[in-house]
Amino acid sequence: MTRNIKLVIRYDGTHYSGWQFQKNADTVQECVESALKRIIGHRVKLTGAGRTDSGVHAAGQVANFKTRSKLALNKIKDALNSSLAEDILIVSAESVPLKFNSQRSAKSKWYSYTVTTEHFADPFIRHFAARYSYPLDIRSMRRAARVLTGRHDFKAFQAAGSGESNTIRAIKKIRIEKDGDLVYIDLWADGFLYNMVRIIVGTLLEIGRGKMAEESMKEILLNRDRRSAGPTAPAKGLCLVKVEY
Amino acid sequence: MTRNIKLVIRYDGTHYSGWQFQKNADTVQECVESALKRIIGHRVKLTGAGRTDSGVHAAGQVANFKTRSKLALNKIKDALNSSLAEDILIVSAESVPLKFNSQRSAKSKWYSYTVTTEHFADPFIRHFAARYSYPLDIRSMRRAARVLTGRHDFKAFQAAGSGESNTIRAIKKIRIEKDGDLVYIDLWADGFLYNMVRIIVGTLLEIGRGKMAEESMKEILLNRDRRSAGPTAPAKGLCLVKVEY
Repeated sequence: MTRNIKLVIRYDGTHYSGWQFQKNADTVQECVESALKRIIGHRVKLTGAGRTDSGVHAAGQVANFKTRSKLALNKIKDALNSSLAEDILIVSAESVPLKFNSQRSAKSKWYSYTVTTEHFADPFIRHFAARYSYPLDIRSMRRAARVLTGRHDFKAFQAAGSGESNTIRAIKKIRIEKDGDLVYIDLWADGFLYNMVRIIVGTLLEIGRGKMAEESMKEILLNRDRRSAGPTAPAKGLCLVKVEY
Repeated sequence: MTRNIKLVIRYDGTHYSGWQFQKNADTVQECVESALKRIIGHRVKLTGAGRTDSGVHAAGQVANFKTRSKLALNKIKDALNSSLAEDILIVSAESVPLKFNSQRSAKSKWYSYTVTTEHFADPFIRHFAARYSYPLDIRSMRRAARVLTGRHDFKAFQAAGSGESNTIRAIKKIRIEKDGDLVYIDLWADGFLYNMVRIIVGTLLEIGRGKMAEESMKEILLNRDRRSAGPTAPAKGLCLVKVEY
């Protein structure tokens, strides 16, 4: 009997070329697929919920695969964790209906971005926070973020040259919190375009610093031109927190 | 005019062979001394407050050095941070009286030890928490820890073969807190013997797990025999938090 197994995967993406398989590169997908092959005896194809880039982290990436293996779920989970490097952790393994697809079945995704405004970053979080050493007007950032919530065409916030033609997405919520020298930007949406979170964060930071006007967010959204938005914020501040189904 | 400069240094000790200079090894002391030489133009000798071992971290290591350089303190600090790798941060640089000695002038030190009871550690804290995957009786650990507070001969908690003959120290406080799968053991003392924190933690964990009796702590202290205490807990869970003067 074929089973469809859903894994929740946490990883420190610092030393990986992202989630998605690439030839001659260390990717999280390749590491988990190789470990699975050793454990269940055959090659499987993992479908990941979010394509995280090189240096991006995940607290709750989701991926599923199909197998006829009869190995118990907790055995698969423990064997994977014993086999994988310490920077990848299988949080859970469960059986799901055959029609479940980590990517297409996802109802919403939560990404979190961490910024440190210190000129030199705390060594303990250096891989998990991007440095942006300017005073930030958090209220102004919050007002600009409010423009983005709801259903919009986010073409301006998609990496130039990205293939996706349907650039309509719905952002449910953007939360911006400050805690000392750290600023956390959390976003919930039904889906994200390629580099969308990092471009939104890059734009919000320019607004927070006063380099871009708060009001320009509306224009950027309407212009649908990548060049009008801010720069792409660095990968290391980004984390895929959770995928909801 | 000779100045005595006190640095507060934070580091992720994962990739260093500890604080103290060793030939043919990367040590934090050597990295900071080399950077200082480039900045002030001559070699200085740094005196560190605590000799942290390979893999041990510091949020507030203190080290001082003497120099006739006239370079402003904030320039020294910024130049050091620009020069050092991202896993070492100079938190502050200040002028102190010439008689100040980071090691001998220290009145008390605070060390913190982090344990994860998960079988497989969270990738995000894998370098900062030691794995001890047993249920722990925190109350029992607290009662055993109470025996250690005060002025005692801690010979049993000193690494075997360590040179220190005066093994009397005063522990001011030991705090043990649990937060989900993490257990934090914090210790404050006027000084610590070589490996003392890690042997105390190793013993407390054996007691928490029920492998050693709670009452044995008193015997160990009185026996003054390293072999009666628990194992030395792994380096990576340990952090020198603060040194008070």
